[in-house]
Amino acid sequence: MKGACMAAEIQEQPQVFERILREGRPRILEVAQAIRRRQPRFVLFVARGTSDHAALYAKYLVETQLGLPAGLVSPSTVTIYDTHPDLRDVLFIGVSQSGGSPDLIEPMTRAHACGALTLAVTNAPESPLTEAAEFHVDVLAGSEQAVAATKTYTAELLSLFLLVEALGDGAPSYKDGGTSSGGGEAVESLPQRAQAVLALDSEVGRLAVRYRFAEQLVVTARGYNYATARETALKLMETSYLVAHAFSAADLLHGPMAMIDRGFPVIAVAPSGQGSSALQPVMERLRELRADVLVVGGADACRLGTIGLELPDLGPEILTPILAILPLQQLAWHLARERAIDPDQPRGLQKVTETW
Amino acid sequence: MKGACMAAEIQEQPQVFERILREGRPRILEVAQAIRRRQPRFVLFVARGTSDHAALYAKYLVETQLGLPAGLVSPSTVTIYDTHPDLRDVLFIGVSQSGGSPDLIEPMTRAHACGALTLAVTNAPESPLTEAAEFHVDVLAGSEQAVAATKTYTAELLSLFLLVEALGDGAPSYKDGGTSSGGGEAVESLPQRAQAVLALDSEVGRLAVRYRFAEQLVVTARGYNYATARETALKLMETSYLVAHAFSAADLLHGPMAMIDRGFPVIAVAPSGQGSSALQPVMERLRELRADVLVVGGADACRLGTIGLELPDLGPEILTPILAILPLQQLAWHLARERAIDPDQPRGLQKVTETW
Repeated sequence: MKGACMAAEIQEQPQVFERILREGRPRILEVAQAIRRRQPRFVLFVARGTSDHAALYAKYLVETQLGLPAGLVSPSTVTIYDTHPDLRDVLFIGVSQSGGSPDLIEPMTRAHACGALTLAVTNAPESPLTEAAEFHVDVLAGSEQAVAATKTYTAELLSLFLLVEALGDGAPSYKDGGTSSGGGEAVESLPQRAQAVLALDSEVGRLAVRYRFAEQLVVTARGYNYATARETALKLMETSYLVAHAFSAADLLHGPMAMIDRGFPVIAVAPSGQGSSALQPVMERLRELRADVLVVGGADACRLGTIGLELPDLGPEILTPILAILPLQQLAWHLARERAIDPDQPRGLQKVTETW
Repeated sequence: MKGACMAAEIQEQPQVFERILREGRPRILEVAQAIRRRQPRFVLFVARGTSDHAALYAKYLVETQLGLPAGLVSPSTVTIYDTHPDLRDVLFIGVSQSGGSPDLIEPMTRAHACGALTLAVTNAPESPLTEAAEFHVDVLAGSEQAVAATKTYTAELLSLFLLVEALGDGAPSYKDGGTSSGGGEAVESLPQRAQAVLALDSEVGRLAVRYRFAEQLVVTARGYNYATARETALKLMETSYLVAHAFSAADLLHGPMAMIDRGFPVIAVAPSGQGSSALQPVMERLRELRADVLVVGGADACRLGTIGLELPDLGPEILTPILAILPLQQLAWHLARERAIDPDQPRGLQKVTETW
């Protein structure tokens, strides 16, 4: 069957979460302990493609949970402009499924030489990126065959969440992600919650039909799930050749709103939490413009859209990006199939992208 | 005439550059001196929309010219998640035309309270953002009436360039932007060079006709001009309602390339320099896919495209973003007119965007 790999890999995610919680966590705690002893004051991430969206989520986590300034590095400042920055007190984290892209390895090597504490978060423990870094976290997603990354993405999200949680131990954690009930338990329930979300598959399949002839689409969200919006747009571009554009809900109001008119397809990712409440003003504008808005979220949020995909309770907002992406991966898969595209082998792409 | 404001403001840019070099520079040098005494070790930017693209350029400058780690702040970590980060040794720069967007003022106020050295770069010396910051740079663009920002964007770019140059005084400056001949002189020639670029207006007008019925478009670049690609896409979305998507050339290979097929319209921004050379592998892929590529750049780069807009010599690469955007602003203007849209008043937008 066309797309069998991607379908199986989407389906596998609850087991991957189990594996990370059971086998990955002890190693993550060890790494976090070693990093904490060095007391980094700034955190930089380097990543590309899907992994860049995992890094974006982690950047929010560092800002909100650790209270440290964080940034996403432009690899080209090293690979093109050959800079030697002062990286003392910097924790430099490279995120990559394959650990093989040359334009991540060079910045990682340079960061180490420039005094940073370096960490590779990959699905490839023996990769060049891992060798270039002082520390390593294996995201334990298992071999991924489909070109469009799915389980490696959520494995990166969960591993990075556990890492930041462990780095923040002792600091006021879960302060504002709505997780005051304690992230510990909530994390444990991720595999079951993922299973429940994946059960929406046939409903998602029916939704995908609506987009059979769509040529373009905007995905929007705010807060932690901005990463989900970005990753959804990328999946739709990769597997369904749809011109999909992600905007944080705030940025959408700064200009791009002009291109949205009656019937323009929009997906709003709005699981419960402050990020979703902050989406409301944008939802109102979209309604005025009569855009066609699919809301992926709780029952209340769904009522604000043209159509809704109602999600079960996803738990604390801070963890929702790990779950909210699942039906959107399924949407990309179904839409590719509707369009007679093999989602395992999108045209023009390779599994490891060699950019420099 | 519809679009008279935007046309006049585009045309005004050489004079704005003159004004900044003559009147703005002394104040920028003063501010830089005060900042240098405090020896910041990390630089954060907060901005939205067009100003976010100016901040992106400045982030590259900080990385390449000052060798300091830098990041773009997600305003929502303050406005939605109410964080109190540790910002000692951080230079926190807010970039905004109006200085009035609430979702910038809050992070600026918070940054000051959290120990950062704060600087507002605005076109509004009396604005709330300026009041919230310790230091201020006025970009001196004069009143801007058109909703789509043009002269305030390049005024921000030049002001930020001069600021970073002054901050780096004494450090090995212009190391890799191809400006070893000295940025000083090159900066002085910006007004004349801008005049020469703006003279391409009628050629740009003829090019715009080609896009009359385009529904989507990708803009790509690498290095310093990634900001130009982002700003071009935003201008086209705002004024011509085109679904325009910007990718760094490296990111384009990580997934989005799949959506590009025969005849898909692409604009590649490739003025001379290392950023343009790094674009070559992507240009080859686009050629294989038979995409329709308009190259905006030097004669050599233009030969790689389906069609070219040949720019005069723009000087050192590091300064090219200040000039390369000019014909692309003109393109957005002409295309809006072709489509019978008033570029001064795009639907659904206001001059000051109130997001929170």
